[in-house]
Amino acid sequence: MTNRLIYLPLGGAGEIGMNAYVYGYGPAGKERLILVDMGVTFPDMDTTPGVDLILPDMAWLEDNLDRLDAIFITHAHEDHIGALGHLWPRLQKPVYARRFTATIGRLKFEEQGLPVEAINIVAPRPETVEVGPFKVQFVPVSHSIPESAALLIDTPAGRIVHSGDFKLDHNPVVGEAWDDARFTEIAAERPVKALMCDSTNVFSLHAGRSESSIREPIRELIAGHGGMVVATTFASNVARLKTLAEAARAADRSVCLMGRAMKRMVTAAEQSGVLTGFPRTVSPEDAADIPRGNLMLIVTGSQGERRAASAQLSRGKYLGMELKQGDLFLFSSKTIPGNEREVLRIVNNLSERGVDVMDDGGGKYHVSGHANRPDLEHVHRLLLPDMLIPMHGEHRHLREHARIGAEAGIATAIVTNGMMVDLTGEAPVTVEHVETGRLYLDGTSIVGALDGVIRDRIRMALNGHVMVTVILDDDNETLGDAWVEIMGLSEKGRSGPLAETMEGELNDFIDGAGRKILRDDDKLDEALRRIVRQVAMEEIGKKPEVTVVVSRLMAE
Amino acid sequence: MTNRLIYLPLGGAGEIGMNAYVYGYGPAGKERLILVDMGVTFPDMDTTPGVDLILPDMAWLEDNLDRLDAIFITHAHEDHIGALGHLWPRLQKPVYARRFTATIGRLKFEEQGLPVEAINIVAPRPETVEVGPFKVQFVPVSHSIPESAALLIDTPAGRIVHSGDFKLDHNPVVGEAWDDARFTEIAAERPVKALMCDSTNVFSLHAGRSESSIREPIRELIAGHGGMVVATTFASNVARLKTLAEAARAADRSVCLMGRAMKRMVTAAEQSGVLTGFPRTVSPEDAADIPRGNLMLIVTGSQGERRAASAQLSRGKYLGMELKQGDLFLFSSKTIPGNEREVLRIVNNLSERGVDVMDDGGGKYHVSGHANRPDLEHVHRLLLPDMLIPMHGEHRHLREHARIGAEAGIATAIVTNGMMVDLTGEAPVTVEHVETGRLYLDGTSIVGALDGVIRDRIRMALNGHVMVTVILDDDNETLGDAWVEIMGLSEKGRSGPLAETMEGELNDFIDGAGRKILRDDDKLDEALRRIVRQVAMEEIGKKPEVTVVVSRLMAE
Repeated sequence: MTNRLIYLPLGGAGEIGMNAYVYGYGPAGKERLILVDMGVTFPDMDTTPGVDLILPDMAWLEDNLDRLDAIFITHAHEDHIGALGHLWPRLQKPVYARRFTATIGRLKFEEQGLPVEAINIVAPRPETVEVGPFKVQFVPVSHSIPESAALLIDTPAGRIVHSGDFKLDHNPVVGEAWDDARFTEIAAERPVKALMCDSTNVFSLHAGRSESSIREPIRELIAGHGGMVVATTFASNVARLKTLAEAARAADRSVCLMGRAMKRMVTAAEQSGVLTGFPRTVSPEDAADIPRGNLMLIVTGSQGERRAASAQLSRGKYLGMELKQGDLFLFSSKTIPGNEREVLRIVNNLSERGVDVMDDGGGKYHVSGHANRPDLEHVHRLLLPDMLIPMHGEHRHLREHARIGAEAGIATAIVTNGMMVDLTGEAPVTVEHVETGRLYLDGTSIVGALDGVIRDRIRMALNGHVMVTVILDDDNETLGDAWVEIMGLSEKGRSGPLAETMEGELNDFIDGAGRKILRDDDKLDEALRRIVRQVAMEEIGKKPEVTVVVSRLMAE
Repeated sequence: MTNRLIYLPLGGAGEIGMNAYVYGYGPAGKERLILVDMGVTFPDMDTTPGVDLILPDMAWLEDNLDRLDAIFITHAHEDHIGALGHLWPRLQKPVYARRFTATIGRLKFEEQGLPVEAINIVAPRPETVEVGPFKVQFVPVSHSIPESAALLIDTPAGRIVHSGDFKLDHNPVVGEAWDDARFTEIAAERPVKALMCDSTNVFSLHAGRSESSIREPIRELIAGHGGMVVATTFASNVARLKTLAEAARAADRSVCLMGRAMKRMVTAAEQSGVLTGFPRTVSPEDAADIPRGNLMLIVTGSQGERRAASAQLSRGKYLGMELKQGDLFLFSSKTIPGNEREVLRIVNNLSERGVDVMDDGGGKYHVSGHANRPDLEHVHRLLLPDMLIPMHGEHRHLREHARIGAEAGIATAIVTNGMMVDLTGEAPVTVEHVETGRLYLDGTSIVGALDGVIRDRIRMALNGHVMVTVILDDDNETLGDAWVEIMGLSEKGRSGPLAETMEGELNDFIDGAGRKILRDDDKLDEALRRIVRQVAMEEIGKKPEVTVVVSRLMAE
């Protein structure tokens, strides 16, 4: 039986978030497997109200658990590592990551009471992890978090480069610079059969800029301001934190970190050795005693998260600090599409307090962590892969990236979640469609996206909820009247109180209903539900969700 | 008693949307009043799930109805006229507008069964409406809808210019061009005491561009494409519709309008005489027989609205039309902040169908309808007002606009909804804070933003809903067991089915509870509720909303 090399994204291909990619090698259907990344996506009120996190549904992998040899994590961003603590118990396979990533992973394991020793620290190439038919090396790339890595995956069928998230930064402030030589060497050593490549910034037409390019502008901005300065960025962007903190020190300002994620990241970065020389910080309690002109807060919540420090500070006093006329608030960050409303809410709150707000200023105070189109093309040329499979992108990104690859004469395919492609030949061939989907972490339970739980919440939010209680005895006679409770609907209808109007109609119906309906729970439920919806439509122009409880009291 | 001139925004100042501004003149507290605009804001899932429209709460005006003389509508955008059909019945005062605006207003009145003759058509300046102490003229301005007007409001205390929405377009394709002379004349005639001015684009630093500037790029784009072309824009942007339709005809394409709003606007514009020479259109049924390369659809839904034509077409067949590989979809529109997620959903759906998508292309295929910062400064200089009151903007816009005015030596103030300012003197003085707020049109009923109705919906969406039914007899003995229904929560808890676990705990409690609790509805309700929330927290880590129904059956 011939062996084949397969690629199967379970998340991250056709969306930005929730990365989870499977590679396999062996006889068809019996390939040995590895998993790259276990990320999350963040919920929103429109589609996932009340949900805490969105995880990839890896049921296929769970069904083929005996074939899975290892899990590799490319870097410590939540969309790559966030599901580790929640879904590892279902897989229970060794995890491999670089030191900083492993440090973050182990914190997650500790929180969940999982065995931290399952997470192995791997040094960069040439160190090699051999699992089944795979030889895997971590290749340092620059990104917006320390120790991001591409994976070099050698198989008997050829060499794969899984780019992870990367940018071409030759002076990244913290961590390793991008190094062309590393990749020309990789391609020279053994031809690259397939490049799975980050597509996030494929629509950005100019070459990307270095993290260090914003150091001076930030320094000038902060030095030029009299009041207190507050800056927000992603907590995991340790280089940015350092740039901000150093700019503060250069302007004779003490630095105070606010927000749990912020402190956690700096600690992890220092402990794992990737961050050195970070200025000493003061606690919020001590910060309160420092003159405003000598203080800078670096805070969480750049995406407008309601409970993070930015939002709290915009609304009033937070940990003893309060923003005032003459203070400056810097978003050293980009607003992720979908978060605009929340971010603007903060900006307007700050405006009401008389605070000056600076956003990324057309790139003056923020640079992206992903490779732009010319950078992607540069990497295609460095590696000269036989095939290019775009990943880490919505469909529009994957399609555009594939188009660019095809124009350059590379075999490409748009491979989205659940598509299993065979890479053994000269071009990718789709061989199977696998069920994928999303799981919702909801409180402490995990529910399937299609379980109907969240659908019901959305329906209640859109339509309101009416509960009907009816009590019948064993002769199918009503005991008392039908009772209606409404939630999330106007109490007043056209002709009076809504609940009373509904009760009147329900009681009229029950009084006139035959035994055939009254003794059949399903028919009665259906009839009462229809009456409630009809009355609601007439009275308030809405069709609510309805729950009917028919209690049958039996003679004892 | 001295007379004073007051200004009081009830909506639109501190937000973009829901415009409603009151002017008054007379003795303090007895000023005669006029209302300018009655707009709506659109709901979102985060804060107003299930709501149809958001209206300004004009309770203050309703309380002072005997003082209100007239309502003026500056133009027919929904954020200026959208509440007219819903709230006019509470005011019942004559409405004044230009012909096109009145046509749209009358359509709304017809829908609601209101007397269309209450809406009066006013010709542009010099025609003057005299109501109470006010003399009001409509001054044509260019904007992204026909017959937008600034209002010239003359009072015994001075002349006010209420800008309405405007841009400086000297070649607007449809309708009147911007004319500096009109405004220099106004200022020369009588000094302008106060300018209430559109602030939407105060953060756009370059001079605005004319609607006509995108005619050639659109023409080239459409002529250069082989497949079917679909373009979306705001239905009310009649000039854009004309540009798109003419570009289609120039490329030998038949034009098909899709979406109710689109057809309604074109009809209203033709009937009111502002639109002439619009190319003949074909119906969707006829369009199906036309070769794709000879067809262009102009469709609604540029903001990603789920039920509009754009979204429907992105998901599959709609009115017999289906998009395919090789077709082109043009967003001749800007995505309003907050709508990104929905718009990108459409773009990705289209990408999956192989459709090429063009967005506004950095302004190549779309221009804004509002004056940019240099344009605003130009108008300040034309009118040389004593005071500048920024309106039509979020707080950040008002603040920036006021800053610019102050820098130019004009007396300014940031006046937000509910602030009544006295304009009689040399600078605006806040004299009163009035209760304002929002009303929600929800189905056919109107509920207050603070009524708790929508808050309950949001809570159910975030936390799920548990209903508990308990039946007691007149000895406070339970009849049957407690019954639990859950909606929007995982059915499975840590220790088994969630509803059963709850029922078990509830029954245990009831069995052991004393008469004192069992006979007190409030105490019993509270206790049962607490048990449900506690069990839910333990079992699934969430605290749901709880409705308890205690039925007491009395011996007959």
